[in-house]
Amino acid sequence: MTTRKCRMIVSLTSLSLLLRFIMAVGCTLAPRTSPENQLRLPPGAPFKIALFADLHFGEAAWIDWGPQQDVNSLKVMSTVLDKEKPDFVIYLGDVITANNIPIANASLYWDQAISPTRVRCIPWASVFGNHDDTPFEWPMEWFSSTGIPQIHCPAANSSYSGEEDCSFRGTSRLELMRNDIGHSTLSFSKAGPKELWPSVSNYVLQLSSPSDPESPVAFLYFMDSGGGSYPEVISRAQAEWFKQKSHELNPDSRVPEIIFWHIPSKAYKKVAPTFLLFSSCVGSINKESVAPQEDEMGIMKLLAERPSVKAVFVGHNHGLDWCCPYKKLWLCFARHTGYGGYGNWPRGARILEITQHPFSLKSWIRMEDGHSHSEVILTS
Amino acid sequence: MTTRKCRMIVSLTSLSLLLRFIMAVGCTLAPRTSPENQLRLPPGAPFKIALFADLHFGEAAWIDWGPQQDVNSLKVMSTVLDKEKPDFVIYLGDVITANNIPIANASLYWDQAISPTRVRCIPWASVFGNHDDTPFEWPMEWFSSTGIPQIHCPAANSSYSGEEDCSFRGTSRLELMRNDIGHSTLSFSKAGPKELWPSVSNYVLQLSSPSDPESPVAFLYFMDSGGGSYPEVISRAQAEWFKQKSHELNPDSRVPEIIFWHIPSKAYKKVAPTFLLFSSCVGSINKESVAPQEDEMGIMKLLAERPSVKAVFVGHNHGLDWCCPYKKLWLCFARHTGYGGYGNWPRGARILEITQHPFSLKSWIRMEDGHSHSEVILTS
Repeated sequence: MTTRKCRMIVSLTSLSLLLRFIMAVGCTLAPRTSPENQLRLPPGAPFKIALFADLHFGEAAWIDWGPQQDVNSLKVMSTVLDKEKPDFVIYLGDVITANNIPIANASLYWDQAISPTRVRCIPWASVFGNHDDTPFEWPMEWFSSTGIPQIHCPAANSSYSGEEDCSFRGTSRLELMRNDIGHSTLSFSKAGPKELWPSVSNYVLQLSSPSDPESPVAFLYFMDSGGGSYPEVISRAQAEWFKQKSHELNPDSRVPEIIFWHIPSKAYKKVAPTFLLFSSCVGSINKESVAPQEDEMGIMKLLAERPSVKAVFVGHNHGLDWCCPYKKLWLCFARHTGYGGYGNWPRGARILEITQHPFSLKSWIRMEDGHSHSEVILTS
Repeated sequence: MTTRKCRMIVSLTSLSLLLRFIMAVGCTLAPRTSPENQLRLPPGAPFKIALFADLHFGEAAWIDWGPQQDVNSLKVMSTVLDKEKPDFVIYLGDVITANNIPIANASLYWDQAISPTRVRCIPWASVFGNHDDTPFEWPMEWFSSTGIPQIHCPAANSSYSGEEDCSFRGTSRLELMRNDIGHSTLSFSKAGPKELWPSVSNYVLQLSSPSDPESPVAFLYFMDSGGGSYPEVISRAQAEWFKQKSHELNPDSRVPEIIFWHIPSKAYKKVAPTFLLFSSCVGSINKESVAPQEDEMGIMKLLAERPSVKAVFVGHNHGLDWCCPYKKLWLCFARHTGYGGYGNWPRGARILEITQHPFSLKSWIRMEDGHSHSEVILTS
């Protein structure tokens, strides 16, 4: 899909403008041939996607534990990227833990989370989770000492020229998205139609044939499942958008469609296995209950009824990594990739592999220690 | 305390700049003779304060019910002000319901709440409640129709030039306070010491003798009991600030001190009567449990041990209006003044009357229908 000229070592620290410039000239992307960003299969090979879910960068940034988690998460991503060499990465929400970030610009942590992908010149796309734009939650313990730690309150630091009241009201979805898109040509993320705001990450990418950029092999739909600054839900307006968009791009439902968002829908609760081993689901951990969206406003009915929709991929539940059949499609969890966020289950990333002739969607989970498991064909 | 030259009719609508200008030239305050704002007793008369608690302006602003509540609240305040003709008004927090306000600048609602006081040329001071700086909470029902109401989302309105993503992250305490202070010389509010931020409304006002502005009759302490953008608590640092400030201004504890904040401390729970009628408390409604601050970090011990502290006044619980003795001081609720906020108990305002020779602090509650009740001497 891309020609990669850069050979850069993964930086574990924040990336400077210089680094960005070097990377920008060092990465050469395939030409984009339509107003919509297009991805293309490499000639004679499948298209591979890595899902990075629930990285939770910026957690507890004021104690050693926090930055250490982010270093660990960078290592997980680096291991997966070097082992799998994917053509594309999807950041599946909760990229950051904004409610733990006591600075005005949470995008600095978002940038760190993207860095392993960017320095390898791999293009990516992002959707929002419920932690990405929450306001900072002041820890109660900061109020019980003899004062609020001044280092955490820029207002008391005269050199700080930004927001002057240390409210840390979170960085909005739109600001985060502008940063994601604006800092690199590798970003395929989009802010989505304005009429769907405050729900932002709603967009579709076309995966094209290697021989013909006009010929779609699959459509990848990204949706914002809410949370943080607004309810955890895919709205009726988003469902309508999907309906219209899919009819426009794929009127006869001939081209397979794959869906990505962060918070499982209520349908995930219906298919959740009691005993993973004795179910028709494929996965390795089933350690908690599905924590679904607050309501279901029509998207699942549309997806289940549309023949071309093959699978939905979500994050959110760190203790679940299964794929289960639901009507004629599959509902899949990714795998907790980050060291931030709750849970101590070993970290990894779900991999998707798309083959054109015949079309197939295969998936497995690549772990931090290098081994893989839970392979499943999602188009059988 | 003040010479009032203005004779303006109370406006029930938002106040224009012209109105502000007319008012600014129409109100003449007593000279302020020290770096701290000073209030002075009128010659030969007591000093009267009206407490306006839990006005909750801006509630459900997108349906008729909301603005109607604000009109009702303006009427309550106007009735109390015209009946009592206080020398000073204290806005005791939850002036607005910011979590219901889908516009970038919640100060517009704050301004409305202040207006009945301002147009009568009465000076005021404010403290923050837990609803004043919360981010907007998107109603779930807005997501179940065929779209987010566009009228509520300025981003989709090309004429909107402010924040462009309809996040409505709330107006920060400091912004609200800047607005309160900046728009009128009648405001005695302060943003408090920076080292106490994010807790903002921490300050002290001196009430002086009519004959000698240097001679204090009482000190009024205002504190920010948190909530909204940070925990509901008076921090150890605030307690230390009170200790230092009171020792500095009133080293021998000779001058009476009166305390104002929004959320009751845990001590209120200890004194809450089971049956109001058969207790040593004075009030008229005792309809719910005390909803106290999340923690107690030292302020109550300081207040209870300091001989000059006479009483604490809070709001927050709309269904409580009593004063109860606690050690050697009194713990009092105000009275729900606003039509915004939960509860349908009749609205009113607690009145305080301070007399110099001998010092006395008397209180009663003035209701919207004009009658008063629950008179109590808090210095006996």
